Amino acid sequence: MSKKTPETRLATHTNEELYYRDDGLVSELMGNFTFTEMMFMHILGRKPSSGDVVILDAVLLTLMEHGLTPSAISTRLTYHSAPEALQSAVAAGLLNVGSQFIGTLENASTLLMALLNDADEFDVAARRKVKELRAAKHPLPGFGHHLHRPDDPRTEKLFQIALVQDGIKGTYIDAMKRLSAIIDDELGKHLTINATGAVAAVMLELDVPPEIMRGFAVISRSAGLVAHIHEEQSHPTARHIWDIVEETVPYTGDALTK
Amino acid sequence: MSKKTPETRLATHTNEELYYRDDGLVSELMGNFTFTEMMFMHILGRKPSSGDVVILDAVLLTLMEHGLTPSAISTRLTYHSAPEALQSAVAAGLLNVGSQFIGTLENASTLLMALLNDADEFDVAARRKVKELRAAKHPLPGFGHHLHRPDDPRTEKLFQIALVQDGIKGTYIDAMKRLSAIIDDELGKHLTINATGAVAAVMLELDVPPEIMRGFAVISRSAGLVAHIHEEQSHPTARHIWDIVEETVPYTGDALTK
Amino acid sequence: MSKKTPETRLATHTNEELYYRDDGLVSELMGNFTFTEMMFMHILGRKPSSGDVVILDAVLLTLMEHGLTPSAISTRLTYHSAPEALQSAVAAGLLNVGSQFIGTLENASTLLMALLNDADEFDVAARRKVKELRAAKHPLPGFGHHLHRPDDPRTEKLFQIALVQDGIKGTYIDAMKRLSAIIDDELGKHLTINATGAVAAVMLELDVPPEIMRGFAVISRSAGLVAHIHEEQSHPTARHIWDIVEETVPYTGDALTK
Amino acid sequence: MSKKTPETRLATHTNEELYYRDDGLVSELMGNFTFTEMMFMHILGRKPSSGDVVILDAVLLTLMEHGLTPSAISTRLTYHSAPEALQSAVAAGLLNVGSQFIGTLENASTLLMALLNDADEFDVAARRKVKELRAAKHPLPGFGHHLHRPDDPRTEKLFQIALVQDGIKGTYIDAMKRLSAIIDDELGKHLTINATGAVAAVMLELDVPPEIMRGFAVISRSAGLVAHIHEEQSHPTARHIWDIVEETVPYTGDALTK
Repeated sequence: MSKKTPETRLATHTNEELYYRDDGLVSELMGNFTFTEMMFMHILGRKPSSGDVVILDAVLLTLMEHGLTPSAISTRLTYHSAPEALQSAVAAGLLNVGSQFIGTLENASTLLMALLNDADEFDVAARRKVKELRAAKHPLPGFGHHLHRPDDPRTEKLFQIALVQDGIKGTYIDAMKRLSAIIDDELGKHLTINATGAVAAVMLELDVPPEIMRGFAVISRSAGLVAHIHEEQSHPTARHIWDIVEETVPYTGDALTK
Repeated sequence: MSKKTPETRLATHTNEELYYRDDGLVSELMGNFTFTEMMFMHILGRKPSSGDVVILDAVLLTLMEHGLTPSAISTRLTYHSAPEALQSAVAAGLLNVGSQFIGTLENASTLLMALLNDADEFDVAARRKVKELRAAKHPLPGFGHHLHRPDDPRTEKLFQIALVQDGIKGTYIDAMKRLSAIIDDELGKHLTINATGAVAAVMLELDVPPEIMRGFAVISRSAGLVAHIHEEQSHPTARHIWDIVEETVPYTGDALTK
Repeated sequence: MSKKTPETRLATHTNEELYYRDDGLVSELMGNFTFTEMMFMHILGRKPSSGDVVILDAVLLTLMEHGLTPSAISTRLTYHSAPEALQSAVAAGLLNVGSQFIGTLENASTLLMALLNDADEFDVAARRKVKELRAAKHPLPGFGHHLHRPDDPRTEKLFQIALVQDGIKGTYIDAMKRLSAIIDDELGKHLTINATGAVAAVMLELDVPPEIMRGFAVISRSAGLVAHIHEEQSHPTARHIWDIVEETVPYTGDALTK
Repeated sequence: MSKKTPETRLATHTNEELYYRDDGLVSELMGNFTFTEMMFMHILGRKPSSGDVVILDAVLLTLMEHGLTPSAISTRLTYHSAPEALQSAVAAGLLNVGSQFIGTLENASTLLMALLNDADEFDVAARRKVKELRAAKHPLPGFGHHLHRPDDPRTEKLFQIALVQDGIKGTYIDAMKRLSAIIDDELGKHLTINATGAVAAVMLELDVPPEIMRGFAVISRSAGLVAHIHEEQSHPTARHIWDIVEETVPYTGDALTK
């Protein structure tokens, strides 16, 4: 429990103006900043460079959509059940942005930071960690993809976009690539750096703390889910999904035969 | 229930590329489009003009944050209870984007469209509708604010930004202003066009259908809620909120005195 | 907005005891009351008769489960994505307890109350209302089922259980049956009283206000969804659901052919 | 990923009957089983003894309510924002049933099972584990309460109720008490077994697997949250909560002074 006095620096208002941190919404922000710039400033508490914004936009595009995934299916079914509450449908989808797909962001970024801060040289620390994870049969966070082989096309693109921006040092991207080479060497085969792993590396280049990275995935995915709702409004799939699941998951209880 | 064959136009993928509608994510979109442009294209299915993007950005900034509101409080408490599931905290906040604050978007935009499509002249139809709503003691959707008086500063700014963009006709903004004048005349006093009413009008200028407008509010607010979570990580308020609520909402059952 | 001073009568505690309304949890409730009795007392603020409890138990059993419905599918997918947050999976499923399936509870019970309070005789008021709803192409709340024809087996059972309990007058059950006869006469064919309609009638016999009826459906369904999660833990279906949906909802954009 | 063919044993239906596992809902279950019995059978897949039901009822009462906690506050605020979607308000509250309060169930039960299965004697294993947890400054799961000192009144009651039921061996309750004595000895002071720790022990007596224990907490809490919604309908607190939070969490940004 914190001993700090509770306080907030996010927003206040007078009768004539609203303030987001230290800026007037009407007098300074609206018309002058994009949504991407504004979320960067508001969440992270500092102004982004133009390169930072290009990178964050690329990240937000990357995580927005991947077709009829568990999040999109949950959103579409919930919209079918409660069309009066569009926000519930988005919420049901966002509840899928959990450990299994997006938690990798935190695991991969935390791993990179730990390896870079290790007392040993990076390569030594990395090789030791890879051996440990393999021995414990743990996943290698940020590596491997069941579909995009040998390489995830989003990864190289994210790295390219990030590395040409002013002020980006490439420390974490380089570390990710060195870790990848060590993993390939240990495994004796190539494992791709997947999109989530790449996003982790470029967000570290932006000094985004690992503990809030998932937040950007949530914002991005919320836009993708709204697109699924709007498509569902004109081209519904929910009834089909319900039917096909009932048809293809058989009831195997003993009820009807006893 | 739709008789249409289920289908989706939102996304597909090959081993080498992902497609959002008809564009390659890696080959065409990343690095070339902002998140605001991408969500406009993906949700609405058409490319925005540069003016459309300026307007949508202004809308997204407007709806992002309003301090320690019910949505932000729900998010902060849920993060305190389940910090391992950041997405749950955002979802709990978004469940507050319902009829009482944001539903106005749909009510105000639907009202404007109905008045503009009425067989009678706008002024006649509008005056009749205002009388009806007042007689039924219904709210006037998009009008009035308990704090921002006489005028909501966001409204004039949204209209200004929208009206200088190429291709914006101003039909709905004009209609909103005429409706406002009629309301003031009927009431004998000035009622502001609130921010939600103004957003409804400018989103109609962008041809956003009323049934998906709330989706943009959800996306915008998700960014605001992520900012609240990040602040909560360093400056927690949840324990204080819990305590102050327990202290100031007395137990009035008969339990202890029987 | 209420002018009442905020207060709560639900719970308080000392170092030695917790109180639910006016009863000591440890000294009076635990070991002496079932969960069904406790929720009746706590939600409705009065002690149930033994017949009330039998009826509420029958209602809770009725609404608990209906196989792989949208709520169960959303729960299973969300559990697959975020197994560390079981509560999120239940929440995603419960967000499906909305207007399309369970909202009928409120519509049917409100309709019955309105007809019984009408200045006209019940049959006259009912026939007029049925004609109105049909003319407006509105559904008849509580009537019809796509599967259970000619009759929903749960309905007759609920009525039977309710009518043999001491203190149950049968006013609302009788009204539901008379309304059913009038509907059949107007339509020239038989439409079943569905389970939701029957639940509405028996909950009115218990004096449950329409505005909180949905709450009992939520509690009941939460137990069904926990069963789906426990089955998913040993017999996962989520990956299959994802795959079968992707396979059977084709991508029809122009992307790959341009 | 499972290689098992997807299947479900939970429910199926014909035109005349619904089946929950191997029983007819109408012909065998309704009127014959309480909600507590039904959830036990449906979730765990076996019939409870009468003693099992008494214990589960006591558990469900224990976890149902604790006044204006984060879950209840989130539910009340969300209901205020979206009264048309009662299920959303319950869901927002349930999202608080996470690691910080209820995760203890899994941690405490897993710890007890590990100690009982340890190659060493219980006391040796327990003392070693307590030393480990203390050295790592980790919490002792199931122990300590900021309010209920020296003892949590619910704990002794749960143990009493459980130990007098036929068929309950008391293995886990005994283990919990021995662990408690060892903790007190190590700390040199008394730490209570809290209610969550006690629930973990008695649920182990019922052979409830740790991975589904949280599900029972979710079901129980859903009933408590419905009670908060019904109270909010007649005695609203949400506007007060919003106001008091805004008043007592000061804005400390630099905005107004620059």
